[in-house]
Amino acid sequence: MDNVLNYIDTHRERFVRELVEWVRIPSISSLPEHKGDLVKNAEHLADELRRLGADRVEVLPTKGHPAVFAEWNHAPGKPTLLIYGHHDVQPVDPLDLWESPPFEATVRDGRLYGRGVVDDKGQVWIHVKAIEAFLKGGNGKLPINIKLIVEGEEEIGSAHLADLLREHAELLQADYVCVSDTAMFGRGIPSLCVGLRGLAYFEIHVHGPSGDLHSGSFGGGIANPANALACIIARLHDDEGRVTVPGFYDKVRVLTEQEREEIASLPHDDQAWLAMTGAPATFGEAGFSTLERIWARPTLDVNGLKSGFQGEGAKTIIPATAMAKVSCRLVPDQTPDEIGRLLADYVQRIAPPGVRVEVKPIHGGLPYLAPTDHPVYEIARRAFSKAFGTKTVFIREGGSIPFVRTIADATGKPCLLMGFGQPDENAHAPNEWLDLENFHLGIKSAAHLYDEIANLS
Amino acid sequence: MDNVLNYIDTHRERFVRELVEWVRIPSISSLPEHKGDLVKNAEHLADELRRLGADRVEVLPTKGHPAVFAEWNHAPGKPTLLIYGHHDVQPVDPLDLWESPPFEATVRDGRLYGRGVVDDKGQVWIHVKAIEAFLKGGNGKLPINIKLIVEGEEEIGSAHLADLLREHAELLQADYVCVSDTAMFGRGIPSLCVGLRGLAYFEIHVHGPSGDLHSGSFGGGIANPANALACIIARLHDDEGRVTVPGFYDKVRVLTEQEREEIASLPHDDQAWLAMTGAPATFGEAGFSTLERIWARPTLDVNGLKSGFQGEGAKTIIPATAMAKVSCRLVPDQTPDEIGRLLADYVQRIAPPGVRVEVKPIHGGLPYLAPTDHPVYEIARRAFSKAFGTKTVFIREGGSIPFVRTIADATGKPCLLMGFGQPDENAHAPNEWLDLENFHLGIKSAAHLYDEIANLS
Repeated sequence: MDNVLNYIDTHRERFVRELVEWVRIPSISSLPEHKGDLVKNAEHLADELRRLGADRVEVLPTKGHPAVFAEWNHAPGKPTLLIYGHHDVQPVDPLDLWESPPFEATVRDGRLYGRGVVDDKGQVWIHVKAIEAFLKGGNGKLPINIKLIVEGEEEIGSAHLADLLREHAELLQADYVCVSDTAMFGRGIPSLCVGLRGLAYFEIHVHGPSGDLHSGSFGGGIANPANALACIIARLHDDEGRVTVPGFYDKVRVLTEQEREEIASLPHDDQAWLAMTGAPATFGEAGFSTLERIWARPTLDVNGLKSGFQGEGAKTIIPATAMAKVSCRLVPDQTPDEIGRLLADYVQRIAPPGVRVEVKPIHGGLPYLAPTDHPVYEIARRAFSKAFGTKTVFIREGGSIPFVRTIADATGKPCLLMGFGQPDENAHAPNEWLDLENFHLGIKSAAHLYDEIANLS
Repeated sequence: MDNVLNYIDTHRERFVRELVEWVRIPSISSLPEHKGDLVKNAEHLADELRRLGADRVEVLPTKGHPAVFAEWNHAPGKPTLLIYGHHDVQPVDPLDLWESPPFEATVRDGRLYGRGVVDDKGQVWIHVKAIEAFLKGGNGKLPINIKLIVEGEEEIGSAHLADLLREHAELLQADYVCVSDTAMFGRGIPSLCVGLRGLAYFEIHVHGPSGDLHSGSFGGGIANPANALACIIARLHDDEGRVTVPGFYDKVRVLTEQEREEIASLPHDDQAWLAMTGAPATFGEAGFSTLERIWARPTLDVNGLKSGFQGEGAKTIIPATAMAKVSCRLVPDQTPDEIGRLLADYVQRIAPPGVRVEVKPIHGGLPYLAPTDHPVYEIARRAFSKAFGTKTVFIREGGSIPFVRTIADATGKPCLLMGFGQPDENAHAPNEWLDLENFHLGIKSAAHLYDEIANLS
């Protein structure tokens, strides 16, 4: 390993220059005019992988943008690790807010600025360079078998990823999965994301009169759908921030004391977190800390309200209808189907008189919780810590990352979310940046990970 | 009076033909291209009034469309009645829904169809023809002094009416005011409108994070402004439909037993009324009938809701803000200022933690209650009943009619709301119609009114 690590140190600058080269290709997946750039981008990566002597390199077509696949199968009897990343990037508008051109990546104060530097070209490059370090700097071979799948549609919803994983199921078989497309908890804190929340999204429609009515002529005589909707929404929480839908918490896996202690030990600053939101105060379910609330507790939030008159000034109507977009973030072992059923039943039960209420399911996704009792998580922790020289923490993410579930479900194998970004990296905004220390230590982390996994049966 | 009434019978057909002629002028006040028609329309009326030998006829300019004024001062020592109407009309779109051309008024089944036939040219013509009946059919003079003010901007909010009334305050001095621009309670039911509700209109703004936030990353950790707004609105009513704002009902003048009996005696059918709304059920403040609720009880209705994402599908955000348009219909002796203060205080008090709440007053208007203990209301009731041969009822209107308050406030005199329309007359819609029996009996009602008022000191 010493040779591998030395190689990484020695070629540190070149690795950055190579990343800068790849960033030049504007692989914006959402803009049709960049369709050719996605192909060029995939080929650029494939060329590099061929240069590294992969057994097999393929640009895999999809109904959308192509993915890149490569494998090194020189470690018979050793585990196989499937690494996931993506080569497409977000759009760059508004362009005038960039301090340097988005596709001419520029170093300032130890950071590399450019579109895709961290999301996700930089993180893909981390693995590519870790592989190179073994092949060129070590004993010429990898300690494990490695497969790399780098898709081209992550920023547009990974629409064809499930198809891709199904179509190439055999090709993509592996013992472990590593996804590198997330952020660390904070600077210098190696972090493995072990939980994602799921989602159950609904619309609540309240129907009253057949059309908007004059609130003078009719006001007081019939129920107002907007008032009724407010009553329904208000009754979905108690005063202490708990969701009142009966059965809502029944399947929630309770945080263990150990998990709570680990979360409590993180260097989280509620005031700094609050400042990031701009809200006047933190607020949430009684009995839980902010991190517990956003990572490990289910929620019910209104995402939108629409009813009646929204223009300037005064229009005096009883609106015919009122609509709320409502979504629940789910935690294991809640399911969108069951939560949908519970919510719909309860909403009908608490609906005020004089209106007709409809609950429409819109969209759902399961939560994800890594099987952290599997030894690979301890292995990954150790590898990460070796590179960064400090304890690796288990964190969670309050949102859903659909492709993680897609990959975890498709492979059925333990999935490591080993990300090298920073929370404030502007991933989808102007001036996206990559911490170059993270980039460097990330390559070492990946190398340690491969090395450590070799010890697993 | 017999000669007067005979004259009205004899010339019944001609009066309709004359109204048809006036209706030909498309005096749509809201459309700039009809500006000239408004002038022509006013001149047409002024010519007729001159023909009837008024002492003074004037087309009064305003900053908008002109009004017409006329007076007959041949009854020294007798009361002066100021009659209000308007000569402008609503637009006619959608034109293809009209069964006959809007400005070629056509008789079908005892109804005259055309734009302005009832709102308000027909009702103005009722008074003009009642005056004619005295002058040409009676003893050549009116039993009282009459002033007529017919404005040209009622359909666009009477923007210059207050100015007009102020500017010509002396000219318009009178003992009583009669406004003929409303509808009767039902067919064959002579009705005096004696109450109008006022209005207090607000916006409630709830502010949370400084921008929309990702509901996955932040959901559960801060208060959601849309949920908070729902809580606020829900707490503005109790389960029995009463407004919970402390002090809200303090100034409400309680209906007397007599008023309640009179309302209860009206031929109101809750199911028919409900069918008109299309709502699934009636609903309102416990302990009151539908008519009491919409006429004589204050309300609080949401007129509009706006927050976050309103488009198709799912967008998972915690919205930065949520807004409700809320208005209260007021009854005597509530005032918009006091209700606004009470509401703003209460909303701040019940605002959930974690958000900032703002209550913005938008618009207000005082309620109106006629001084029905003044003998002129008994007189008007009797006059109306003589013509229609049945009991005249006191009704109210749940909405506000700004020009009534403008006139009542400007003159300070008892105001009779003596209307000859029907509730389903399509006043602002295609196929506006006037019941020709109402038109005929309306002229007789006006004649009886002038005759009866002569007996008042």
